[in-house]
Amino acid sequence: MLPVDGEFFVSAPGKVILHGEHSVVHGKVALAVSLNLRTYLRLQSTSSGEVCINLPNIDTFLSWEITALQPLLAGCKGEWRWIFELDADLLKRLREFTGISDDSIDTRSMAVLAFLYMYLTVFAESLASITVSVWSELPTGAGLGSSAAYNVCLSAALLSARGTISSPLTPQQESARWSKEEMELINRWAFMGEKIIHGNPSGVDNAVGTWGGFLRYHAGNITPLSWVPILRILLTNTKVPRSTKVLVSGVKDKINKFPSIMNPVLESVSAVSCTCEQTLTEMAAHRPSAEHYDILEELIDINQHHLNVMGVGHSSLDTLCRVTLARGLHSKLTGAGGGGCGITLLRPETDTSVIQSTVEELKACGFDCWETSIGAPGVQQHSSAALSQDILKILNSY
Amino acid sequence: MLPVDGEFFVSAPGKVILHGEHSVVHGKVALAVSLNLRTYLRLQSTSSGEVCINLPNIDTFLSWEITALQPLLAGCKGEWRWIFELDADLLKRLREFTGISDDSIDTRSMAVLAFLYMYLTVFAESLASITVSVWSELPTGAGLGSSAAYNVCLSAALLSARGTISSPLTPQQESARWSKEEMELINRWAFMGEKIIHGNPSGVDNAVGTWGGFLRYHAGNITPLSWVPILRILLTNTKVPRSTKVLVSGVKDKINKFPSIMNPVLESVSAVSCTCEQTLTEMAAHRPSAEHYDILEELIDINQHHLNVMGVGHSSLDTLCRVTLARGLHSKLTGAGGGGCGITLLRPETDTSVIQSTVEELKACGFDCWETSIGAPGVQQHSSAALSQDILKILNSY
Repeated sequence: MLPVDGEFFVSAPGKVILHGEHSVVHGKVALAVSLNLRTYLRLQSTSSGEVCINLPNIDTFLSWEITALQPLLAGCKGEWRWIFELDADLLKRLREFTGISDDSIDTRSMAVLAFLYMYLTVFAESLASITVSVWSELPTGAGLGSSAAYNVCLSAALLSARGTISSPLTPQQESARWSKEEMELINRWAFMGEKIIHGNPSGVDNAVGTWGGFLRYHAGNITPLSWVPILRILLTNTKVPRSTKVLVSGVKDKINKFPSIMNPVLESVSAVSCTCEQTLTEMAAHRPSAEHYDILEELIDINQHHLNVMGVGHSSLDTLCRVTLARGLHSKLTGAGGGGCGITLLRPETDTSVIQSTVEELKACGFDCWETSIGAPGVQQHSSAALSQDILKILNSY
Repeated sequence: MLPVDGEFFVSAPGKVILHGEHSVVHGKVALAVSLNLRTYLRLQSTSSGEVCINLPNIDTFLSWEITALQPLLAGCKGEWRWIFELDADLLKRLREFTGISDDSIDTRSMAVLAFLYMYLTVFAESLASITVSVWSELPTGAGLGSSAAYNVCLSAALLSARGTISSPLTPQQESARWSKEEMELINRWAFMGEKIIHGNPSGVDNAVGTWGGFLRYHAGNITPLSWVPILRILLTNTKVPRSTKVLVSGVKDKINKFPSIMNPVLESVSAVSCTCEQTLTEMAAHRPSAEHYDILEELIDINQHHLNVMGVGHSSLDTLCRVTLARGLHSKLTGAGGGGCGITLLRPETDTSVIQSTVEELKACGFDCWETSIGAPGVQQHSSAALSQDILKILNSY
């Protein structure tokens, strides 16, 4: 348990789909990977008798008296079943309490519901007086797993503060991770937050936020890959809005319309994911070579063409591919497509000046663009010294 | 047999691959189709004792004394075996006679060799005094079957003039075609010309030039489709030079490198060809509808992406696709790719102003562009009245 006035920093990464978006819906292999744009959380133990949540990214600052929250738990039978299923009664009471209606799906409402639900279930035995502040480098609603990073941070911080899992950081360390069993628990609880926010999530996003690195996703099974390299990338948000639901159903329609044409394309995408997994494993086992990067680039190009065949491309993504290819860099959409985000692989030898001019040209197209990496660690506890001054300043101002 | 001073006009179309280029090399279905840019031939019976060939497209005007050619046939055993195999001895003697070396592959030399070989074998029993003039709307070396159109015209005109097959045109007709059996013979003899020019041709180009319309090509079997519509297209020559041999071997390398990824792509292309065949058959059986055109456009897009996966795309072809798509028109490369030619489907309702502005923009990109059609008839005999003044003027000036 955290002492009064104690504080606790955690972070979790976002997620991109490296290969297999859309075809994963049809039972094929996908590779999801952590995106090193992270969400940071500070949890403070207080003596105010209140629980506070500060989400400056979405301009949300709320607090509740613990005594007002306590009645919501009346009749609840203990915490362990909460790992396995969402407590619909508790969620219903929470919606009534906060005045968030059943059909409300706005980011703020969902973030507040997920927080209160997780807080109440983790601290059910004894509601603690705490303040939680969250700041994220991830844009929301861009398919980058921002809600999962938020839920994983909440889960890890609340479970640690409650003493359900350890606080792995020793005084000499800047960052530390939990044991495998503890991370399982973090992941399970975060998944409940994801269910509140998304209804029927696959569980991939929270798994990536928890485990980090690369995950193989196939027919509902999520398998973290051991020993994978960290790859430098550009992440580009075209900011073209799209509906994942419409795109997914468009692909389904196309498969139904042209089964003999489309089913082999899904097969091929699955093989792209498997070949990529194999290449990443080799890169980690040996020294990554230029040939490895050549293969990764070829796979990116092939999959981008396949996604165009599925009808989820967009002229903004064509622009991304063209602008980067003009500098020898290879890009593909990531996630739902139809706009949204794309990733561009950077080779170890790619010059800073090339990266800078690419980023500038992409920004001139109206896109947001970050130089970051994929394959970085999942959820971590940090000392305050490990965090940048900018992030500390934001988290400490509440 | 043609009377002295009699004349004889024939034409044959070019060819484009609608679907299945490259994957046909790996045993998959391809659809080849006649391109209504035609090659025209005028054959005159003369009393000069000479045989003359005039090929103004390639600035070639040659004549030989019949008495000088006669010895080349010494020891030849008659015409019928010439339908089935190339007479290597005769070809060798022809090379010596014309001074065209074995390693010479230039367009002029090949056109002359094919002409003389066909002339000698068709007229072996009695060499006739004739003048042949050929003019083509087809660019050479662009993968549009210009050599096949030439060989088919030669074959049809020489066989008709010799009396081996009929002259189907009646006085009232502008254009006429031969019987199925006669066209088989035209096709076989034209194939010998193709062998001389290309070494080991598939036989698709001369089959398209002979039969016209759409042909299914699968595992060496060529099947003309009956009842198919004529489709309006733009044909664009990017004029980017490429080596078919290098492109074909690049695709092979990619299949060997990524078999699990590439084999399904070939499957999918094959299914594109079959779905297109089905759609064309339906269009001919019923009234072509907007939905039929929607499908043809979707198939074009899918195949273009697949060809990019095979690595035979080119930035010039991307430009073609982008420029035409900006006007709602769908394009794909045709043939070897890596530059070369592309086709753009025009819908029946596509406005003339849209076509004009598209052609202008493509020409501004440095491309050649023709508004033409695919699926038109194969080899035909014409009355002089059926030919345009421009073509007549060229053919009659020799």
